[in-house]
Amino acid sequence: MTQAAFYRGGRQFAVEPVTPRQPGQGEVAVDVAFVGICGTDMHVFHGNMDARVGHNRIIGHEMSGRVCALGGGVTGLVVGDAVVVRPLHPCGDCPACGAGNAHICHNLKFLGLDTDGAMQGTWVVPAFTLHKLPEGTSMEVAAMVEPLAVAVHDVRRARLRAGETALVIGGGPIGMLIAMVAQAEGAKVILSEINGTRLKMTKGMGFTGLNPKEVNVAEAVLEATGGAGADVVFEVSGTQPGVDLMTAAVRARGRIVMVAIHAKKAEVDLFRFFWREVEMLGARVYEPADYDRAIQMINEGLPVAKLITDRHPLADVQKAFEALDGNATAMKTLISVGHSTGGGAA
Amino acid sequence: MTQAAFYRGGRQFAVEPVTPRQPGQGEVAVDVAFVGICGTDMHVFHGNMDARVGHNRIIGHEMSGRVCALGGGVTGLVVGDAVVVRPLHPCGDCPACGAGNAHICHNLKFLGLDTDGAMQGTWVVPAFTLHKLPEGTSMEVAAMVEPLAVAVHDVRRARLRAGETALVIGGGPIGMLIAMVAQAEGAKVILSEINGTRLKMTKGMGFTGLNPKEVNVAEAVLEATGGAGADVVFEVSGTQPGVDLMTAAVRARGRIVMVAIHAKKAEVDLFRFFWREVEMLGARVYEPADYDRAIQMINEGLPVAKLITDRHPLADVQKAFEALDGNATAMKTLISVGHSTGGGAA
Repeated sequence: MTQAAFYRGGRQFAVEPVTPRQPGQGEVAVDVAFVGICGTDMHVFHGNMDARVGHNRIIGHEMSGRVCALGGGVTGLVVGDAVVVRPLHPCGDCPACGAGNAHICHNLKFLGLDTDGAMQGTWVVPAFTLHKLPEGTSMEVAAMVEPLAVAVHDVRRARLRAGETALVIGGGPIGMLIAMVAQAEGAKVILSEINGTRLKMTKGMGFTGLNPKEVNVAEAVLEATGGAGADVVFEVSGTQPGVDLMTAAVRARGRIVMVAIHAKKAEVDLFRFFWREVEMLGARVYEPADYDRAIQMINEGLPVAKLITDRHPLADVQKAFEALDGNATAMKTLISVGHSTGGGAA
Repeated sequence: MTQAAFYRGGRQFAVEPVTPRQPGQGEVAVDVAFVGICGTDMHVFHGNMDARVGHNRIIGHEMSGRVCALGGGVTGLVVGDAVVVRPLHPCGDCPACGAGNAHICHNLKFLGLDTDGAMQGTWVVPAFTLHKLPEGTSMEVAAMVEPLAVAVHDVRRARLRAGETALVIGGGPIGMLIAMVAQAEGAKVILSEINGTRLKMTKGMGFTGLNPKEVNVAEAVLEATGGAGADVVFEVSGTQPGVDLMTAAVRARGRIVMVAIHAKKAEVDLFRFFWREVEMLGARVYEPADYDRAIQMINEGLPVAKLITDRHPLADVQKAFEALDGNATAMKTLISVGHSTGGGAA
């Protein structure tokens, strides 16, 4: 028997004992170590995704763990391997899959939303979703691979080159990770964020944090770039002011990466797109290469652990979500699931 | 003495005799043959650009002509050469010029708006703006090189490949030229246009014309592409329904080219950009290579002459603008300026 956290609707989780099923053909059972709480998980908590997840769902998709059992036909893994899950299950048949873009499959199943996820002692997943971790990877930090892979994907979509100036609009976990990745790739990074506490976290990270409530960020970017504008802008805020800033701050032929989920249409300065031949690229989740790069960057010492602000055991998952809800000082909350809750070496 | 058409404000042109100036250092005098009336020229006629052009401006920038005098230091041209003008005068000093994007120079002067243009017998221009025409090019058709170069630039920005499906939203002269160029490059083209007369002009051109007032164009595109959507969408309408259609009809990882001038912000489905990793590229005017390609395509027989619906001599420029204003059956009006008003071989 292991424990699992079920989302029951109405902002309630119930932690209950479950008997893990055996992995089937092509599946692997993973003993979960840590699970991060994502913005999407908060949407579930708020009841905004009940139609999709129902009231009997184990959520969670940012995780680390160790292989504990192999189903038939699985090769390249042994029991005990440290792994992370890339929680995408594409259909293989739609036009996006046919064009080699399975990560944005028209019928994509997202593990931990459309199927049960990582907030349980043992998670059974398709073998193709697994990426092995190098020996010595911290299991705590490895739970950051999934959001880091998002940031890696966003930066890759931007075709960012060393020496370029990147403006990141929005300093939540994804915005902070994009700033860290862009900087590691050699960019000069400016981060725009209205939350003073989050802005303080940028101190010592090497990039410039600006508060758009206090500073005209577009003017600051123009000043920092000799009047040119930012080579790349990442819109991660999901707000109308963020959308206004992205076109005001980008250079001629610059690239805007649309990372944020804009639930409703935004007013966009299409004249600026025409006038300055601006480019915009949508970016969603990640491809296998982004996971590989994220794992590599963590092992090269990218200090993503700085973003882990809160930790709770699985038994306290309800408390963890309540504590994170509307908490301006929190960045990333981890849920410890397995026995090795202390982090450290794998 | 030659004649010149001066825009005098209040929808009035005055055709008056002028003494052409001699070309200075690096300049060339061109005897103008034909001048096309562009949408921008209609904006001038309507008084919308008075602040920019004033009330003593010779407009016109779509043209063909022959070199009649060379200023000092000009090489590679002789008197009598058939030429077209690429009417862009970049500053050479701004960040866009510095990055090799002089055609979208921050301080770009557009000949025929910011300086006097082609609606005069002899036009003196910088030598670097000239492209020579091959022997035998029709001077009438050559007046279409400028708008054709816009279309070539738009298609090149789209990275269009043979076999792809392109949706063109808006069937004015630029939309029609984009459709013709995209088709010539091997694309399957669907053109969306609400004007029935314009839609009729697409008959016999080999592409599919659809009226969005009668047909759900997004559904038609999905049906024509096995549910994938268009590889490339050209938004040329400058309308909110056009902006809605562009995101609805584009495939995952498809490219939208923003050709239209949207005078005010439009509501854009940014969620679709994120969800399907859609790309949007602004496209403005042209680069030298686009002029070369446009001249080549005309000489390879691209039937752009089909779009020339009206002709008037320079003396009747007032009548030409009045006849074109709000005329649903007109596509391209040419003003004949020089002696060789009959078109035909150069």
